Amino acid sequence: MRESQTVQQYVIELARAAKAASVPLGRASNAERQKAVRAMADALRAAAPQILAANAEDMRAAEAAGTSEGLLDRLLLTPERIEDMAAGLDRLAELPDPVGRVLEHRTIDCGLDLTRVSVPLGLVAMVYEARPNVTADAAGICVRTGNACILRGGSLALNSCSAIARVLADAVASCGFPREAVAFIETTDRAATAALMGLRGTVDVLIPRGGAGLIERCVREATVPVIETGTGNCHIYVHETADFAQARAIVMNAKTQRVGVCNACESLLVDRAIAASFLPGMLTELDQAGVTVHGDDETRQYADIINFVDATEDDWGREYLSMDISVKVVDGLDEAIAHINRYGTHHSEAIIARDEAACERFLAEVDAAAVYTNASTRFTDGGEFGLGAEIGISTQKLHARGPFAAEALTTYKYEIRGTGQVRP
Amino acid sequence: MRESQTVQQYVIELARAAKAASVPLGRASNAERQKAVRAMADALRAAAPQILAANAEDMRAAEAAGTSEGLLDRLLLTPERIEDMAAGLDRLAELPDPVGRVLEHRTIDCGLDLTRVSVPLGLVAMVYEARPNVTADAAGICVRTGNACILRGGSLALNSCSAIARVLADAVASCGFPREAVAFIETTDRAATAALMGLRGTVDVLIPRGGAGLIERCVREATVPVIETGTGNCHIYVHETADFAQARAIVMNAKTQRVGVCNACESLLVDRAIAASFLPGMLTELDQAGVTVHGDDETRQYADIINFVDATEDDWGREYLSMDISVKVVDGLDEAIAHINRYGTHHSEAIIARDEAACERFLAEVDAAAVYTNASTRFTDGGEFGLGAEIGISTQKLHARGPFAAEALTTYKYEIRGTGQVRP
Repeated sequence: MRESQTVQQYVIELARAAKAASVPLGRASNAERQKAVRAMADALRAAAPQILAANAEDMRAAEAAGTSEGLLDRLLLTPERIEDMAAGLDRLAELPDPVGRVLEHRTIDCGLDLTRVSVPLGLVAMVYEARPNVTADAAGICVRTGNACILRGGSLALNSCSAIARVLADAVASCGFPREAVAFIETTDRAATAALMGLRGTVDVLIPRGGAGLIERCVREATVPVIETGTGNCHIYVHETADFAQARAIVMNAKTQRVGVCNACESLLVDRAIAASFLPGMLTELDQAGVTVHGDDETRQYADIINFVDATEDDWGREYLSMDISVKVVDGLDEAIAHINRYGTHHSEAIIARDEAACERFLAEVDAAAVYTNASTRFTDGGEFGLGAEIGISTQKLHARGPFAAEALTTYKYEIRGTGQVRP
Repeated sequence: MRESQTVQQYVIELARAAKAASVPLGRASNAERQKAVRAMADALRAAAPQILAANAEDMRAAEAAGTSEGLLDRLLLTPERIEDMAAGLDRLAELPDPVGRVLEHRTIDCGLDLTRVSVPLGLVAMVYEARPNVTADAAGICVRTGNACILRGGSLALNSCSAIARVLADAVASCGFPREAVAFIETTDRAATAALMGLRGTVDVLIPRGGAGLIERCVREATVPVIETGTGNCHIYVHETADFAQARAIVMNAKTQRVGVCNACESLLVDRAIAASFLPGMLTELDQAGVTVHGDDETRQYADIINFVDATEDDWGREYLSMDISVKVVDGLDEAIAHINRYGTHHSEAIIARDEAACERFLAEVDAAAVYTNASTRFTDGGEFGLGAEIGISTQKLHARGPFAAEALTTYKYEIRGTGQVRP
């Protein structure tokens, strides 16, 4: 950023240069893009010392500011973590090419030859928090798919992300592409995000990766198209026909295997018919694992446990991302589906039941990206679904839903070849 | 709308009821949805007298308000136009069902059975202007695809649209679906549109159909997902290798065959190498047809015509929708592509050239929904492309690009069937 520039001018200039750089990237062959991504991997390995030095600066500042251990761990880079990033880029190079697929080819009535072909989106913006590795993942998947990118990392990670982005831009340049194709916003000024969100016509899509606050801000303020990701208030509904042992195992897995992730279970619904037989054991197991139960009045009757608090209306909509779970007794399948469709975030929802008709109704009527029968919600993940490098998990319905990968960074175009046709 | 309600409360209540109604519609079979759409067609025919009476009221008010003839013609309903609407609904019933398509089915690594299946979006909002027939088109395509809809028509057409919507809602109810599935906002208060645009979590997509102002407002203000439609600043680029007669025929067709449509040509780019030989004849033909040429300095040299005005920077970005065209002399393919990508609206763009390499570069590098070689831009249309009932022409890149039809009113969902799987 030059001294005389405002933050807004700086972001506009970066974005325009990145958009221009998207043209040569977009017309590059698969082999050329693969080569660029491999060069990015090699460059990261070669530049590990500088990147670690930049990261050490961020770590010092973050520690001095009293940053939590969890955040410090996300921020930390090690030689192994840099190698992981590089290896991730090498794997990206091997991904099947999502660009240039012929989606349709036919002659239309007027005799025109019509081909619908997949093409890169153009300029992809990503806004994320204090994980330096996202810089490499994001830039890599964009270059792989023929898109330029403009990245905005968390303030805490500014030095690390900026060092990584420079190395990657140089690598792209060494393959004959404009280095502007990997643009990183080198300021912690919040006005930069605002500027980025307003660049309609330049930014083709904005993908926020981070907490609910960041995503909410993007959805509210952006005039550029946004793919909403991540928030998961996932439910497990235990139907009266459930196998209790299976239900308990699935709830414990979905709640406690990893708590800070969007596909973890945040809410348990139990049929009234089995509340007295199922809940005491279930609640005790949750309690013993250190999970706090936020239960309704009926649940409290069965909660002879230490970690119990009365649920408020607010609890039904919460994504705890911690060792907490809301528990509610429901009056059967209809109430369970209605409750989930009202309070859920359309991410991942599960029913545990032996009754097939109940399972099929749940699958059909619950409005979510991934709906499970008799399995843990924790499987909603690009890797588990076999999609390759996951960009995020979309909780909206347009363009991409659920785990999404490289293909979501393409759109299509109609190429129409004529011989002088005019419309009668 | 009840008297004690604010406009916002009224819209929220309508939308929530419509969303709830989307559940039974979404789980209905293809045959049930076909039946409902046919019942809507029959109901329109039966209610023609009431609809015409409501329309007569709108026409009287519009005439009294000094409405332009063009608008009055759009607003007018006749027995034939009502029959056209009904016939359109009957055709919709025949469309292949876009819901319930199995897009993927496989067993993933952990042994889960995964099916990706197309499902309705849920609640579709459409905002449009003074064409009463859009009410029937929009409601029909939504019911056909298992979606509920909430519609907001232009103020001038309030009585007509409202009469049509009531008839359609009754028809839907006669087939056992909630009548709330076809919701129409019965007020001309602008606050209603604002309320609709903010119903995130209830409205699954908002599709504005109308002028640039309406679309711009939706993109800027909506927090619900929007599919941007319509604006077309379409270019025809005449390459130095063009067949002049073909080029002239295509330009005249694209500019004058119908001027008020988004796929009409608004701007002509001509290679400098052929400017002196091509432009005089072309400009004379445009002039004789009554087209005003907004030309750059070089064009003026060849413009021995009556209808010439000097182009300003503003002209390059304009969608005239009238007998006007901007004309610019360019320095070859690179400048033409750069100009189009800068000033175009990513709708429809054409090159006229005999040189195949030039054609292929133009197809690859112009960033638009439909890119043509040697044909008129006027073909960009759902009907011409063979898509069936067109909803609009998307000028954005996510979800749907170019002409889009019923399929764009679906999303997908992962249905995952397990036998107790938990994530290791």
